[in-house]
Amino acid sequence: MALQFNLLNQTEAGGRRAQLILPHQTVETPVFMPVGTAGTVKAVAQDVLESLDAQIILGNTYHLYLRPGHEAIRRMGGLHRFISWPRALLTDSGGFQVFSLSQLRKVSDEGVRFRSHLDGSSHFFTPEHSMDVQIALGADIAMAFDECTEYPADRRRAEESLRLTMAWARRSLDHFRAHREEVPWYREKGCRAQHLFGIVQGGMYRDLRRESAERLVEMDFDGYAIGGLSVGEPRDLTLEMISEVLPLLPNDKPRYVMGVGYPDEIEQYARMGVDMMDCVLPTRAARHGLLFTSEGRINIKGKKYAEDQGPPDPACDCMVCRRYTRAYLRHLMQAGEALSGTLNSIHNLAYYLGIMKRVRSRLQTQD
Amino acid sequence: MALQFNLLNQTEAGGRRAQLILPHQTVETPVFMPVGTAGTVKAVAQDVLESLDAQIILGNTYHLYLRPGHEAIRRMGGLHRFISWPRALLTDSGGFQVFSLSQLRKVSDEGVRFRSHLDGSSHFFTPEHSMDVQIALGADIAMAFDECTEYPADRRRAEESLRLTMAWARRSLDHFRAHREEVPWYREKGCRAQHLFGIVQGGMYRDLRRESAERLVEMDFDGYAIGGLSVGEPRDLTLEMISEVLPLLPNDKPRYVMGVGYPDEIEQYARMGVDMMDCVLPTRAARHGLLFTSEGRINIKGKKYAEDQGPPDPACDCMVCRRYTRAYLRHLMQAGEALSGTLNSIHNLAYYLGIMKRVRSRLQTQD
Repeated sequence: MALQFNLLNQTEAGGRRAQLILPHQTVETPVFMPVGTAGTVKAVAQDVLESLDAQIILGNTYHLYLRPGHEAIRRMGGLHRFISWPRALLTDSGGFQVFSLSQLRKVSDEGVRFRSHLDGSSHFFTPEHSMDVQIALGADIAMAFDECTEYPADRRRAEESLRLTMAWARRSLDHFRAHREEVPWYREKGCRAQHLFGIVQGGMYRDLRRESAERLVEMDFDGYAIGGLSVGEPRDLTLEMISEVLPLLPNDKPRYVMGVGYPDEIEQYARMGVDMMDCVLPTRAARHGLLFTSEGRINIKGKKYAEDQGPPDPACDCMVCRRYTRAYLRHLMQAGEALSGTLNSIHNLAYYLGIMKRVRSRLQTQD
Repeated sequence: MALQFNLLNQTEAGGRRAQLILPHQTVETPVFMPVGTAGTVKAVAQDVLESLDAQIILGNTYHLYLRPGHEAIRRMGGLHRFISWPRALLTDSGGFQVFSLSQLRKVSDEGVRFRSHLDGSSHFFTPEHSMDVQIALGADIAMAFDECTEYPADRRRAEESLRLTMAWARRSLDHFRAHREEVPWYREKGCRAQHLFGIVQGGMYRDLRRESAERLVEMDFDGYAIGGLSVGEPRDLTLEMISEVLPLLPNDKPRYVMGVGYPDEIEQYARMGVDMMDCVLPTRAARHGLLFTSEGRINIKGKKYAEDQGPPDPACDCMVCRRYTRAYLRHLMQAGEALSGTLNSIHNLAYYLGIMKRVRSRLQTQD
């Protein structure tokens, strides 16, 4: 079944208000997707994510493949059931983690050999294997296996990397199409299967990005991601690449910019026509005491908050801001208490999800 | 104002169903009190504690005195407001931690000099100072400053220790009575103040325990605790000491056994007439993967749970058992995820609080 993506409104600037109808959840877009690396959005329980209106969360294929293993998750009915999350899920392809986490790796046309960061054991990932793993995990959306081109990369390197990503996209798609019905919940969901997104690469070269987008569109994926951004490049370059690619992608399919970003970035990209974004920033920053607020970023570790009895963000209505003070959050951080990461993460996620909610509301009515 | 303690029913065996009317909460007893060492029940948010029907939690005077400091907490309106916990609170006297955590300490009749486990700084605690700190923290119930006699202790040592505890109890009470109106919320609560409990010591010597109880009762505290138990002695000795002391305590005041215990222990003591108990066990064990269930204790790290899709405890209706599987809890533990400590702690607290709820229900109707 083709991915249903219902455009509700589109603005002059390109921003789209839409519904993405996935097997487990109708996702209102533009959407921010919290990252649940190892089957948990770190320190935040599933019922809290639900109360925050998180509609879709990510799982990392690399992490889940290593532990507890995709075969175990398949036997238990897939990732939704394993982590008790009935709403939508998206898995990355494992490529990004293999390239960024694993010291020992060897790339060939066939795939990537790498060593586990957990126990040093040797593994080989190919596009076909990434699809098999992602089908076993059974997220609503799977991603093509790609090489995330590092930054900076010279033209030759970016071309070579793109060649690999395009060949792997083809192989990912072919294997996925042949096996998509093997997803654990296929029958249970009335013979609906997962959806596969292609990933646009090409480094910071506009023509390579164009070439990548056009070739992927020809292959006819269910949706399109723009990868290889937020890898250290200046922000105007990120924006330039997104602006270059968006017009080339079909209007009736979802567009996903991977791994972004700061609060103002996600708002800006959503207004340009990006439908989906994910980022570890709200949760990772939270664990280091960095809170995103309507008054800017604050580092809750600061001594000036020691007796600050105001809420973390006076303009925020989240369960943390309604109940706790900056002084208390600072104390939890100073004392190394587990609740610190939890409360900070809940607020930051509420802040990110709140931004997207407001953007959706404006996109709904704007011309 | 005297502490209101309304006996609703008492059984032949001594078990009491009562209401303890504290400034911040009417506590239904017998009650189990989760331990919130540094102003947080580790890894569990306050709204979750409320939904678990926790009526009263502990704060540790030693920890809060060192960080963030009792004066800061006083300036912020007391511990209830600082941690955003509107229900009842109890603080220990700091004595137990000073004796158990601090390597460098020197005891005299006047008090205890010790070094902070955080930064090695030197501090001096006297009964009067413990009262001042506890009044600044402003829990509903404060505890007299005592020496927790170690186990084993020979008779001479136990006598000497008891002599100190009794002298300190007198000084605690005198100082508390002179200053109780300084609690931060005194006016806000219609000129109600905190309540002070005395602590029965005496090692494992029945006559010393009797002497201790009788002398404390003469001093007329608001309630009585039995301390110095669960310090390594065999369980029948714990029971013997409790059985010795309970009949000597006034029937119309609450009785608190400190630092116990296993699930069957808290049930047993509640049926004998103990009204209040606290223990770190449910939360500490949880962080190490030990779950208390209707089928006994299970170590969730066990490989046999790797694909166990049953709930942690099939007979439990808590939010963890309703949603998650043993396999998922095991995975969170294996992966070192913060959510592991949170979910395990929630279940164990639900289990402990559930026991006491059932005990209360039976005590309500039994003869």
